[in-house]
Amino acid sequence: MNPIFSALQTSVFEVMSRLARETGAVNLGQGFPDDPGPLDVRQKAADAVVNGWNQYPPMMGIPELRQAAATHFKHWQGLDLDADSEVMVTSGATEAIAGALMALITPGDEVVLFEPMYDAYLPLVRRAGGIPKFVTLTPPAFGLTEEALARAFSPKTKVVLFNNPLNPTATIFSEADLDLLADFCIRHDAVAICDEVWEHVVFDGHRHKPMLARPGMRERTVKISSAGKIFSLTGWKVGMVMAAPKLMRVLSKAHQYVTFTTPPNLQAAVAYGLGKDDSYFEGMRADFQRSRDRFADGLKGLGFSVLPSVGTYFLNVDIAPLGESDDVAFCQRLVTENGVAAIPVSAFYAEGAVKNVVRFCFAKHDATLDAALERLAAWK
Amino acid sequence: MNPIFSALQTSVFEVMSRLARETGAVNLGQGFPDDPGPLDVRQKAADAVVNGWNQYPPMMGIPELRQAAATHFKHWQGLDLDADSEVMVTSGATEAIAGALMALITPGDEVVLFEPMYDAYLPLVRRAGGIPKFVTLTPPAFGLTEEALARAFSPKTKVVLFNNPLNPTATIFSEADLDLLADFCIRHDAVAICDEVWEHVVFDGHRHKPMLARPGMRERTVKISSAGKIFSLTGWKVGMVMAAPKLMRVLSKAHQYVTFTTPPNLQAAVAYGLGKDDSYFEGMRADFQRSRDRFADGLKGLGFSVLPSVGTYFLNVDIAPLGESDDVAFCQRLVTENGVAAIPVSAFYAEGAVKNVVRFCFAKHDATLDAALERLAAWK
Ligand SMILES: CSCCC(=O)C(=O)O
Ligand SMILES: CSCCC(=O)C(=O)O
Repeated sequence: MNPIFSALQTSVFEVMSRLARETGAVNLGQGFPDDPGPLDVRQKAADAVVNGWNQYPPMMGIPELRQAAATHFKHWQGLDLDADSEVMVTSGATEAIAGALMALITPGDEVVLFEPMYDAYLPLVRRAGGIPKFVTLTPPAFGLTEEALARAFSPKTKVVLFNNPLNPTATIFSEADLDLLADFCIRHDAVAICDEVWEHVVFDGHRHKPMLARPGMRERTVKISSAGKIFSLTGWKVGMVMAAPKLMRVLSKAHQYVTFTTPPNLQAAVAYGLGKDDSYFEGMRADFQRSRDRFADGLKGLGFSVLPSVGTYFLNVDIAPLGESDDVAFCQRLVTENGVAAIPVSAFYAEGAVKNVVRFCFAKHDATLDAALERLAAWK
Repeated sequence: MNPIFSALQTSVFEVMSRLARETGAVNLGQGFPDDPGPLDVRQKAADAVVNGWNQYPPMMGIPELRQAAATHFKHWQGLDLDADSEVMVTSGATEAIAGALMALITPGDEVVLFEPMYDAYLPLVRRAGGIPKFVTLTPPAFGLTEEALARAFSPKTKVVLFNNPLNPTATIFSEADLDLLADFCIRHDAVAICDEVWEHVVFDGHRHKPMLARPGMRERTVKISSAGKIFSLTGWKVGMVMAAPKLMRVLSKAHQYVTFTTPPNLQAAVAYGLGKDDSYFEGMRADFQRSRDRFADGLKGLGFSVLPSVGTYFLNVDIAPLGESDDVAFCQRLVTENGVAAIPVSAFYAEGAVKNVVRFCFAKHDATLDAALERLAAWK
């Protein structure tokens, strides 16, 4: 058996959701919304399942969705993508990331990763044969510095795996950060795999800035998006990959052999959804922002030390002021004794883990957030 | 970029389906049925999309489907599987195969493959770091021999990747073949990854014999099944993996990081479908058998040399009697000049390819088969 995989534990998201189901805890751990997702989009999928095509769609995705993605990202992010050669549909962003790493890494290549990072990144980089080089982001801004990048990049750097907006910190990289990273990628002839699944979930008037649009990055960026995140349908597992044709040709080989295709009925519904009015996307953002504020205010009212959140479904609490220094133990007690599931942020580190931050998902109905706050009140 | 993937061509199935769409050819290439799949199963999915859970399901699959799979394979194949520790749902059998290879191979391990083989196998084995060792199966029986296995197995053999019923030959391995292969696996302490996606598509009274049930194989077999194949819904991409807990623990890590989960709505529908009466499965088989006979008889009537087919959606034609010795050129002409897409069987070989066999998919309406026969008549 492969030692990289056999040494792994079950993902903390899965473990916490399972614990929450078993204990009846309010689940603010794994990032998924209470909202069932837009009914019209789900009805489109239902219609396609009953009346549409249920056999293999084209391996790259159905033409309608590839075109809808190109149009959507032109409208929202100013990207100029050719639907036929620069857009591919995958079975979720996770498959897109796994496939991109398998396609772009040759064993021995160095891969720059930013901590804290999503828990799938490191095992996938290692299994693809990549040598991870870490850049540790530090609070409060979790920004990039020339020194940190200079330490991580080398002549062997082939790939950078970058998440913006950033889960779990709920931050967005600044223009200066993006310029700096682009500059390093260009100088080292590295490809940036940009996990931008939270691109639509940004608050306080922020607009997502895709790496693909930056000068010099058009030919060296793999943009990864997620219909599950865009439409609050996290179970659908419809991902989108955008990249220049030269990269796409190789990315598509990984997709061809890792899942081959993605359900055409769900693709048809996502194609429809991506064309929804601006008001839908603005409304979603406003709803999440309202939930963020409700939950943040509630936590603050209880005396918790809440860190800022400008994107993603998440906000973080610093548990050090509570006299706590072990986020894993804290989350364990929180779920079993207080009935609230959260995620220990140390799970997002391979080395030098921060141990005093706990992540909560606020993409929930008011009643869910209020129930969680009530349970958290008992903690204090 | 990774040289294993960058050297690959687009899959022949995809290329032929694209050509068929572009030229208006009758598509008997890629293996998918004309039948839209059972309406009640599709309605279940539609209902689940509108009224059910659309967020992340449990990473291993929804409990209903895992239980339904255990019950189904006990009833049909006598397997005794624990739904909770021995059944996992994946985004299609392709993901299951990719994940199993990533999980079970350590770079340098030898992997036994049987030619002809499905085109995804070899790139996935190579990308996982495996060293392929080929056993070439020869017509008419495409069976195993002690000598061939002895040449392929070595002390470094860790994995065997085995497809039964076998695509593209449309044959089923005999009891003696299965015993022989089991014996080699046990003696070499190798794991058999058994791609049994065609298990329900067997004819002439045959019953599928799962490798997992053979003496000594319970702890060293990974069984891979496909709801897409079972229900003629090839686009759904719902696969099932069955293996002993010790293997499953590692297999689940690959799944966790390659796709994480599979759409819960489609899973719910498959759970329902697996419980359908025997008559459904028997009826499906009888329908396919009737189509096979209709198409085989038609081809024979036109003077084609038709090879036997006892399973899968496929039957093969020997083109040597037509004076043809290049299956690729033959298929190219067939699709562009005659308007029928088929698959050159040489695409299933890494070395020593047979060049005189062409594969047709007969899982089609009578009208489709008849239209293809009419076009094929013009060939002669
Ligand atoms: C794939 S489960 C994790 C979902 C998620 O993005 C998160 O909770 O961080
Ligand atoms: C995944 S496309 C190929 C489908 C199939 O099983 C075949 O045509 O052999």
